[in-house]
Amino acid sequence: MSVHSKLYEGKAKILYTTDDPEVLLADFKDDATAFNAQKRGSIQGKGNINCIISSKLFEQLEAQGIKTHFIDSPAPNQMRVKAVKIVPIEVVVRNIAAGSLCAQTGLALGTILKQPLVEFYYKNDQLGDPLLTRDRLFLMELATLEQVETITHLALQINEFLRSFWQGCGITLVDFKLEFGLDSQNQVILADEISPDTCRLWDSAEADTNRRVMDKDRFRKDLGNIENAYQEVLQRVLQAVESQN
Amino acid sequence: MSVHSKLYEGKAKILYTTDDPEVLLADFKDDATAFNAQKRGSIQGKGNINCIISSKLFEQLEAQGIKTHFIDSPAPNQMRVKAVKIVPIEVVVRNIAAGSLCAQTGLALGTILKQPLVEFYYKNDQLGDPLLTRDRLFLMELATLEQVETITHLALQINEFLRSFWQGCGITLVDFKLEFGLDSQNQVILADEISPDTCRLWDSAEADTNRRVMDKDRFRKDLGNIENAYQEVLQRVLQAVESQN
Repeated sequence: MSVHSKLYEGKAKILYTTDDPEVLLADFKDDATAFNAQKRGSIQGKGNINCIISSKLFEQLEAQGIKTHFIDSPAPNQMRVKAVKIVPIEVVVRNIAAGSLCAQTGLALGTILKQPLVEFYYKNDQLGDPLLTRDRLFLMELATLEQVETITHLALQINEFLRSFWQGCGITLVDFKLEFGLDSQNQVILADEISPDTCRLWDSAEADTNRRVMDKDRFRKDLGNIENAYQEVLQRVLQAVESQN
Repeated sequence: MSVHSKLYEGKAKILYTTDDPEVLLADFKDDATAFNAQKRGSIQGKGNINCIISSKLFEQLEAQGIKTHFIDSPAPNQMRVKAVKIVPIEVVVRNIAAGSLCAQTGLALGTILKQPLVEFYYKNDQLGDPLLTRDRLFLMELATLEQVETITHLALQINEFLRSFWQGCGITLVDFKLEFGLDSQNQVILADEISPDTCRLWDSAEADTNRRVMDKDRFRKDLGNIENAYQEVLQRVLQAVESQN
């Protein structure tokens, strides 16, 4: 596979074209951003860690029959993926109240939701990724009704699987962000990544509000020990996957 | 009617109890606030103007069979209203894109919506009246499904009537905010006010983006001539009502 030119540089990944127009190469970076890139930094080893965790989780999801953009991982921080047209919606699935949900509803951090909440945000840095109602989503023609139904169904299915997977790692899945894309057959498939950058992960054995955090909130909230937390998540994922074999 | 004690002071009105526990007296103030009360000022004559306009519009709506909290207006800036339990939702109906809809979707100011958009915001100053999805509304138990259906239906009915009423005044109804309450029979009825404080009103004969504004956006955006605009709206409302008789 020969890598051609840089197609797109995002906050956490660079996408390159390859000799196959249906395949892209994603290069995971150590760069970390938060609060719509107002806070910037770097988490050493994050590129490798997030790429490995994402690759493992995509493999697990594929085994469950959930289509993803994942092809393979030619290097620790590199993933070959199917070229897709990204649906400009950030899909957030919440099991426990945290982050902007608390800020915008007054719900206390840690409130367990009676059922998972699937929310849509407009993927638009300039506007600050605002929350979308279904009416706004359709008004802006960001997706068709059929695509939204498919995405909601997939998001809940993925949540069911991930919740149980992370539980097996001794980790509580608080919430997470997904992105979906349309493949060459216009089919909705899971894209982007699943990692401590995109999930809120709490150590199930730890009750302390700060100590339990194993995800990017350590960076957002300056909790320290960021690299250790990411490494610990990686080790637990690798152990969980190994124990299956 | 003897007025008892102050029950509640809001940003634009003071509510007093009366000798009838099912009746309150609303006193409309000249005070003006915007951007969640970060901007404060006063619009001379606003209390009278908003109370008179609201009273006329509530009378018109009652004549259409739409139940409101309006009883009568014992003084230009006073309204006797039915005591209700306010549903903590600000209901916004939009015909044309403006304000936060533009800021959060990227839609250009003035974009005519294919159909009216009914939106819900959490009535909570401390949290900044955030946008609600239906799921969040139910998660927070702000209203029952039946109440939301009733409110949506009423909001659209009120929009139909108001659009046509304002059109008869040479005014384009861009969007407006409603509040609903539960009366002593737990019935959903229209409450609060309908005025240039709560509606975006554009002079239909004026194309200029700033000159056409006849509502509180003159205060929000420092466009000047606020008192004149409110007076002009009042005169047109009174004329429209008179021409019906």
